[in-house]
Amino acid sequence: VSHATDLVGYSLYLDLLEDLASGKTRHDFPLGREEDRVRHAMELAGQGLDVALVCSGDAGIYAMATLVFELFNGGGLSDAASRIDVTVAPGISALQAAAARAGAPLGHDFCTISLSDLLTPWESIQTRVKAAAEGDFVIAFYNPVSKRRRTQLAYARDVLLQHRPADTPVILATNLGRPGELVRIVPLGDLNVDDVDMLTVVVVGSSDSRTVTTGSGKTWVYTPRGYSAKEGTQLGQTV
Amino acid sequence: VSHATDLVGYSLYLDLLEDLASGKTRHDFPLGREEDRVRHAMELAGQGLDVALVCSGDAGIYAMATLVFELFNGGGLSDAASRIDVTVAPGISALQAAAARAGAPLGHDFCTISLSDLLTPWESIQTRVKAAAEGDFVIAFYNPVSKRRRTQLAYARDVLLQHRPADTPVILATNLGRPGELVRIVPLGDLNVDDVDMLTVVVVGSSDSRTVTTGSGKTWVYTPRGYSAKEGTQLGQTV
Repeated sequence: VSHATDLVGYSLYLDLLEDLASGKTRHDFPLGREEDRVRHAMELAGQGLDVALVCSGDAGIYAMATLVFELFNGGGLSDAASRIDVTVAPGISALQAAAARAGAPLGHDFCTISLSDLLTPWESIQTRVKAAAEGDFVIAFYNPVSKRRRTQLAYARDVLLQHRPADTPVILATNLGRPGELVRIVPLGDLNVDDVDMLTVVVVGSSDSRTVTTGSGKTWVYTPRGYSAKEGTQLGQTV
Repeated sequence: VSHATDLVGYSLYLDLLEDLASGKTRHDFPLGREEDRVRHAMELAGQGLDVALVCSGDAGIYAMATLVFELFNGGGLSDAASRIDVTVAPGISALQAAAARAGAPLGHDFCTISLSDLLTPWESIQTRVKAAAEGDFVIAFYNPVSKRRRTQLAYARDVLLQHRPADTPVILATNLGRPGELVRIVPLGDLNVDDVDMLTVVVVGSSDSRTVTTGSGKTWVYTPRGYSAKEGTQLGQTV
């Protein structure tokens, strides 16, 4: 971002750049219209400008970077835009921010599943949820609910309850890094879809994940480094 | 790190901090001995010092943060150390750095699997590999090989070949961010364990992942945002 002359992004995210954005030309877009935003950024770059396409989290994780390559691959770009150079800069994705606030739930194998069925058939999502349950992965659910979608998260909870205990810790992280940030830890058996909104990241522990309350009174969730931790024998061994 | 008075970590990582480390007390540890390092950091904090426990990547992903909570939970800490405050700071994990260099392979659902059987029984790892194959996840393999372990990655490749095409792109990212950085893209069917060393991150695409060669001549790997992209129909829709 610091080298760019032009910034393209959702207005709120460009506002968050504050000083980094000063002296640069802003190309503000409303929420949604992701393809328009990315296409505009690529066409500006095709005109020879140094453009930063700004998004939240990690541009490579459920975000804009993949759209850049989708457009390269048959997206009807101008010749100039199809020849631009691209650098992808990683960032902190929502699951990492949620994990850090709650402890270390991603200390061992994990997966991410988007519950949005706008671009992915519900049958494919069901297959992934079942596979993640059978593999006993820690699972971060992106897009857990929307205004019209309320049933997918309940389905996932019910599948997971067939494979891991009802007291498996679940992290509900809402408004991460924004005013009103709220991080809750609930047992899987008590996961209530009405406690989850569009700004909530849901991280479900594996059967190895556990909670610990430290001397300061705070309860944390972590996943030990190895399966053998189930028997409390992991300390003293070497990774 | 910037507020801490004391730094604890593997010497090489403390060296990498450069100016950030100036004026702070260093507590250098050799490679390995993770538990000693973490325990030392927690005991120093118990003495009232402001301690940063430094690791590479994301402290929460296969790294030191989970060990902190393992020690809180029955690790025989002193009373003072068991009452310390902890803040976990997320970072860029190796899979994100590898993904960014190679394109956007993590654009849709993915998982991480450590192939190290030091703390996890091989049977559990096999179950996770099979589940990830059945769920058609993009998979990042951590600890793919070691000096004594050569067979696990070949096993994973052979399981995956039963569920996704032989031309599925695989990213081999070696020495990320260090001298000699090398990022290779090979088809799953040609994945050769001898091309992978302990400093290589292996990211295997899903059946939806694909490559695109851009006008600059570089070949990238990306995973489209939705399954329907298989038919090339995703553009023009809204996430």
